Amino acid sequence: MINVGLLGCGTVGSGVVELLDKNLGIISRRTGDVIELKRVVDQDLDKCRALGIKESKLSRNFDDILYDDEIDIVVELIGGIEPALTFIMKAMEHGKHVVTANKDLIAEKGKELFDMAQTHKVDFYFEASVAGGIPIIYPLKQSLAGNQIQEVIGILNGTTNYILSKMSEEGRAFADVLREAQELGYAEADPTADIEGLDAGRKIAILASIAFNSRVTVDDVYVEGISKITLNDIKFARELGYVIKLLAVAKQGEDGSIQARVHPAFLPRKHPLAAVNDVYNAVFVRGDAVGEIMHYGQGAGKLPTASSVLGDIIDIGRNILYKANGRISCTCYEDKKILDVSQLRAQFYIRMTVKDQPGVLAGIAGVFGSNNVSLATVLQTTYGGEMAELILITHQVEERDLNDSLVVLRGMPLVGNIDNVIRLEGMDKI
Amino acid sequence: MINVGLLGCGTVGSGVVELLDKNLGIISRRTGDVIELKRVVDQDLDKCRALGIKESKLSRNFDDILYDDEIDIVVELIGGIEPALTFIMKAMEHGKHVVTANKDLIAEKGKELFDMAQTHKVDFYFEASVAGGIPIIYPLKQSLAGNQIQEVIGILNGTTNYILSKMSEEGRAFADVLREAQELGYAEADPTADIEGLDAGRKIAILASIAFNSRVTVDDVYVEGISKITLNDIKFARELGYVIKLLAVAKQGEDGSIQARVHPAFLPRKHPLAAVNDVYNAVFVRGDAVGEIMHYGQGAGKLPTASSVLGDIIDIGRNILYKANGRISCTCYEDKKILDVSQLRAQFYIRMTVKDQPGVLAGIAGVFGSNNVSLATVLQTTYGGEMAELILITHQVEERDLNDSLVVLRGMPLVGNIDNVIRLEGMDKI
Repeated sequence: MINVGLLGCGTVGSGVVELLDKNLGIISRRTGDVIELKRVVDQDLDKCRALGIKESKLSRNFDDILYDDEIDIVVELIGGIEPALTFIMKAMEHGKHVVTANKDLIAEKGKELFDMAQTHKVDFYFEASVAGGIPIIYPLKQSLAGNQIQEVIGILNGTTNYILSKMSEEGRAFADVLREAQELGYAEADPTADIEGLDAGRKIAILASIAFNSRVTVDDVYVEGISKITLNDIKFARELGYVIKLLAVAKQGEDGSIQARVHPAFLPRKHPLAAVNDVYNAVFVRGDAVGEIMHYGQGAGKLPTASSVLGDIIDIGRNILYKANGRISCTCYEDKKILDVSQLRAQFYIRMTVKDQPGVLAGIAGVFGSNNVSLATVLQTTYGGEMAELILITHQVEERDLNDSLVVLRGMPLVGNIDNVIRLEGMDKI
Repeated sequence: MINVGLLGCGTVGSGVVELLDKNLGIISRRTGDVIELKRVVDQDLDKCRALGIKESKLSRNFDDILYDDEIDIVVELIGGIEPALTFIMKAMEHGKHVVTANKDLIAEKGKELFDMAQTHKVDFYFEASVAGGIPIIYPLKQSLAGNQIQEVIGILNGTTNYILSKMSEEGRAFADVLREAQELGYAEADPTADIEGLDAGRKIAILASIAFNSRVTVDDVYVEGISKITLNDIKFARELGYVIKLLAVAKQGEDGSIQARVHPAFLPRKHPLAAVNDVYNAVFVRGDAVGEIMHYGQGAGKLPTASSVLGDIIDIGRNILYKANGRISCTCYEDKKILDVSQLRAQFYIRMTVKDQPGVLAGIAGVFGSNNVSLATVLQTTYGGEMAELILITHQVEERDLNDSLVVLRGMPLVGNIDNVIRLEGMDKI
């Protein structure tokens, strides 16, 4: 018998209880021993009672898990930094293995957690912390472990992907779709963490750490949200053969340097990620041997997330039976250099409002040219008044050169406004 | 040190040698010990020498691996049934763990191989046998193990997917694209196993066995190839909102009964598999908790396949270090009922040539109606002569009812020919 102590009767917790109940037979057979939910701790016991958990298993006190020597695995599903961090640390000190879905915690305190797990030779699993039900963390550690990973690009936030999909498919404005997403429960009442890219930033920090065997925290990730994306941008993207997605990007250069960033991007329509719509997530990986692969599925939700939690429980259970816990804790973490976004090269889409008069384009092109920014595409739309809309796509340029150009352009009387600047990504798929 | 004995210096073998050489540092650190290629056996040693393998490691005699007690893992990459089967069986009897990419062998002799591995408590891994570099076998056994798997649908054969993609994109006929695929090395000189669906049949037998924890051999799989697909079928598919793909389908019913089949299918354009083109493979899985996921990538090729072989070697290496070999050999195989294709229900596309005269459609519809086959869509194209082309799509019907109807129709003077009959799949994505 492998005993599990569960922390938290919220959405994911309820999914774990439901799934363990429904599939107990196959789960136990696949593990090699019976998985028993021995203790469930939450401050609000009514939430746990509503899941049909026996009264004798319920407690408000984490110590009832911590000091129960029969409990092998602690499943932390309360979220946030504290008290989750303290509980997990104590559990590991007491020799308990830990499964969590807590992305905030891992993105901020990953190093401390991994070190603690290693010190106490316990398993610390967190498949559910990134991309819900999609198997990605374990495959990066196992099936793909023969590769040097060069690139991980994810659509890791369902809320923003839903909003961008609806804006694109139905021609509705950002605020309108956001309101609908909130009504449908796809977006929180305070949607800032999703909309501004912080949620995706935490997830790509976790994936980058694993893919590149280096410490990447959320503070290392450049983050930019989607609130500035207009229907105009989406229209021009379509005309030029792209879709706009909020991408979480992590790349490792030949020299081992790392970049990690979250921002909206023009993605070629032929890229595998371009067809990932609505609340679906996907993770695209490029490895030096495997080439391009993509894992696609539901990035959130009660049962998909519980699926990942159960996969972790089963694998730890097998380790327990074979006394093999710690078998995939890699001690190979390095401190690789993390590049600032201003040091990167990219192609950019620029939408600006300019005076509709002769010589304007020449003047603007001149500013870019003198800052080493060369232009690949120029589209001009006349409003019929004295202003025109100018759409530019640059060749690969250094981001700081682009920024220098934009500073000069903003000061020119001919330029009404720089309306939007969006990076291009996945350009080998054109 | 973990010592590997390699059998076979062909395409995949050369990829394993290259990848192990290139990424030895990270592979060893991720495993926790150095991986050493100790012995390489092939009948044609010149092939091995061309890979730069030291003369002292080469042998033509498998016994040089078998009786070397220092060799922990045997990597079988010679393919085919014999002598691969004998070598693997002997290796396991001698306590060696085995990695193979040999789909033919597993699809035919899986039971014997799994039993032998269990008897001798050794690991038997075969990620590379299905879908090349795409992680799917291990994720089914681990990350998704909390699920009851309901459905696995794969595009598992790159040759046929390339041919269908080119027919569809470039409007070229089957024979023409096949010839090109042969010239490009995407199709074999004798393409029968690919074109007629046997290769995909072996792979779906393997996936079904793992997904449903039951024995499914290649003989249990209904197989139908793509040679009968014409540009006309592709054109009508497009008009009606579908693409034609060679799908490998395995499903488990509520009662535990299994179906396994490979055939061309009309797939709704919105299905995630519909965008998988050229030589790419993908596996779509539906589980009761995870919902829909899809893994996409390169299904063949030297380095992608070697990526899977190395992932297996690394995982076995970790098991060796923790004395945990056998930790995921599930003893939970059942003998589930496998349904014959005639017992299944499906929607069908039917293309037929009929006399272009009043009353024909009524007569044909009458035959279907009296056999419990109801029609969802009817399209008629007049050739301008005395014959017309009739395109029908049925509602869900029993396959035997459809076949009964077709027997009657073939005997009717009004019916010139039943030109093609193709199943519809993935219809919940309409």
